[in-house]
Amino acid sequence: MSNEQPHGHSTSGLSPGVEKPPSMNPADALTHARRRPSVTTLVKAIERADRAALSKAITLIESTKAADRDFAERILDHLPKKDGLSIGITGAPGVGKSTLIEAFGIHLLQRGHRVAVLAIDPSSIRTKGSILGDKTRMPQLATDSRAYVRPTPTGRASGGVAESTRSTIRICEAAGFDIVLVETTGVGQSEFDVYSMVDVFLLLINAHAGDELQGIKRGIMELADAVVVTKADGDQLAAARRASSTYRRALSLSASRESGWKPPVLICSGRSGDGIADLWNTVESFIAQGLPGRSLEHERGARADIVREVERLLGAQFVGRPLVKRDLDRLQTKVAGGDTTPRAAARALLDAHGA
Amino acid sequence: MSNEQPHGHSTSGLSPGVEKPPSMNPADALTHARRRPSVTTLVKAIERADRAALSKAITLIESTKAADRDFAERILDHLPKKDGLSIGITGAPGVGKSTLIEAFGIHLLQRGHRVAVLAIDPSSIRTKGSILGDKTRMPQLATDSRAYVRPTPTGRASGGVAESTRSTIRICEAAGFDIVLVETTGVGQSEFDVYSMVDVFLLLINAHAGDELQGIKRGIMELADAVVVTKADGDQLAAARRASSTYRRALSLSASRESGWKPPVLICSGRSGDGIADLWNTVESFIAQGLPGRSLEHERGARADIVREVERLLGAQFVGRPLVKRDLDRLQTKVAGGDTTPRAAARALLDAHGA
Repeated sequence: MSNEQPHGHSTSGLSPGVEKPPSMNPADALTHARRRPSVTTLVKAIERADRAALSKAITLIESTKAADRDFAERILDHLPKKDGLSIGITGAPGVGKSTLIEAFGIHLLQRGHRVAVLAIDPSSIRTKGSILGDKTRMPQLATDSRAYVRPTPTGRASGGVAESTRSTIRICEAAGFDIVLVETTGVGQSEFDVYSMVDVFLLLINAHAGDELQGIKRGIMELADAVVVTKADGDQLAAARRASSTYRRALSLSASRESGWKPPVLICSGRSGDGIADLWNTVESFIAQGLPGRSLEHERGARADIVREVERLLGAQFVGRPLVKRDLDRLQTKVAGGDTTPRAAARALLDAHGA
Repeated sequence: MSNEQPHGHSTSGLSPGVEKPPSMNPADALTHARRRPSVTTLVKAIERADRAALSKAITLIESTKAADRDFAERILDHLPKKDGLSIGITGAPGVGKSTLIEAFGIHLLQRGHRVAVLAIDPSSIRTKGSILGDKTRMPQLATDSRAYVRPTPTGRASGGVAESTRSTIRICEAAGFDIVLVETTGVGQSEFDVYSMVDVFLLLINAHAGDELQGIKRGIMELADAVVVTKADGDQLAAARRASSTYRRALSLSASRESGWKPPVLICSGRSGDGIADLWNTVESFIAQGLPGRSLEHERGARADIVREVERLLGAQFVGRPLVKRDLDRLQTKVAGGDTTPRAAARALLDAHGA
C-alpha cells in the first residue's frame, strides 16, 4: 500500500516531516484540564493529533456514563471522516504481541505511515494507583511522534469496550493515523468483535512446540486472514518452522473461503525484525484483493452493535421506572438465592409492567 | 467444611459408596437421542446424575435459540434446589489451571465430595470437527464417576455464556455435585461475571519469575479470596516462593477489605499435590467466616443478569418489527461505512419508531 490510496483506504497523504509533529508538550492545557473542554476545542486538538485530546476523547467514548458518551458522539459528529486501514492482532498472553506490534509499527512508520495502537483487553496489574507492566510495552512506538499508543484503560471494563472500539478507530483515523492496530488477547469474545470491525485480522501463535494448541479458541483460526508464528529467532527458529507447518496443515484442512483467499502462515521475529516486511507484504496483498469477505462482515458487526445499543437504551428506560426498580430489588434476591433464573425474573418484570 | 453443612452450603451428605454411582453406560438412550426428550425424562435423568442428560440440559441453557432456553428454564423449574459450594478459579492460559483443578478435584473426591468442573471460556482449537486439546485435560476427573467435567462448548460463544453459568451451576448442584469448580481464563470480562456468582474466587498465577505481572488484569487481584502460585515444584519451587512474596507484598499494599478477610497467597503443585490440602483448608476458613462480602456481590451479579435479560427481551421485541428491520438494514450500512455511530443509529431507530 505504501503511500498510494487503494480500495478507499486513504493513507491521508501523511509522511514524516511533511506535517508538523503533534504536540508532546507535557504542559498542554488539556492534560491537566479539570473542566471538560468544549467540543470545538477537542475536535481541533484531535485534528492536529494532540495526544491528550485524543486520550480524553477515547476515555469519553469508553465511559460508562451516558453523558460522557453523548459528548463523545458530538465530537465524532464534528470530526472529518478519514478512511484508514485497521488491522486486528490477536494472540494469547505471552505470545509476543507487544514485541511484534512494536516491530511492525516501526516498519510502518519507516514506510511513511502514522500508526495508532489500541489494546482492547489489557492484561496488566494495578496496585495502589501505580500501573505496572504498562511502562515497558512498545517503548519505541510509545515515544515516537508519528505513533500513538493508547494507554490501557484504567479500572474494570464496562462490557461495552468492544463496541466503543469502532468509534475509537474512527477518532484515531480522524487524527491522521492512517493505520490503526487493534490488539486483543485471544480469549473471551473480544476477538470476534474486533474481527467484525477491522479490515485485516491477524492471529499470532507461539513458536514453542507443543504449545501450538494452547490459548487458541475454536473458530479463531477460521477468522484469521494470516497466521503469524512469533518469536522465530535463535533457538526457537526451528520450532517456529515446525509450528508453521502444523498450522499450514491445519488451515489446509479447514473449509476454503468463499472469497478464495487462502490465509498464509508466516514466521516472524519482533526482536530481529525477520519476517516483518513479509507480514506487511501479505497485508498489502490482502488489500490488493479488495479485503475479501470484509464488507459483509462489517455490516454484520455494525448491525450487532446497533442492536446492542438499542437493547441498552430500552433497558435503561424500563429499569429506570420507580415501580420496576422496586420489583427488581425483590427479584435480584430471588435470583441470587437460586430461587429463579435471571431470564424468568426478566420475563416476570416485563409482564408485570406491561412492556 | 468436609461433611458438615455450615452457612447453608450443604454438601448433600454425599460420599462415595453411599450412593449408586451415576450411569456411565454409553448406550444410554439420551446420548444419541435425536428428538428432544421430555422435561420429566430429563429432570429424572439429571437427578440421578446422568452425564448425557446433564450435558443436554447445559447445552440448552447455552443455546442462542430462545426456544431452547425456554425449555431449559422448564427443566430448572422442576429440579430440586440443592445448595452447593461454587469456587471460581481464574488464571491466564498456561498458568496450570487444568493440572491444579485435576489435583484439587481429586482431593475433594477423596474427602467425600462430588465435583463438577465448568469451563466458561475454553481455549482450544477445533479443526474439521475433531476437538484437539480437550482429550487430555483432567483425565482422572473426567473419568471418575463422582465427578463431572463439562466438555468445552462447541462453536462461537453467544456472549451470554457468563449469564448461563449461573443456571449451569444450579443444574450441577441439583444433580448432586456439591462442589462446582468454575474455571475461567483471566482475560476479558468473564472473570468479573464469575466472581459475582461463586462463593469463593481463586486467582492462579505463574511461578516463573518475571512473568508475575503477565496475564493478570487490573482489579482481579482485588477480587481474589486467595492467590495461588502454581507449578511450585522441582526447579520452580524457589521461583514460586519468590513470586508468593511479591504477591503477598502487593496484596498488603492494596486497600483492606471491609469484611476483614485478608486474602492469603499459597503455593501449590498440581503435579506433586503439595499445597492442595492447604488450599482446601483456606477455602474452609473462608466458608467458616461466612463467605465474607459474598451475599452483596451475589445480589449485584443477579441484578446485572436480570437487566441483561430484560435488555435482550426488549431488544428482540423491538428489532423484530418489520419496519424497524428495514431501517436497521439501512443504518447498518451507514455504521459499517463510518458515517454514524452504533449509538446514534440506535437512537435514531428508537426515535423513528416511537420506542
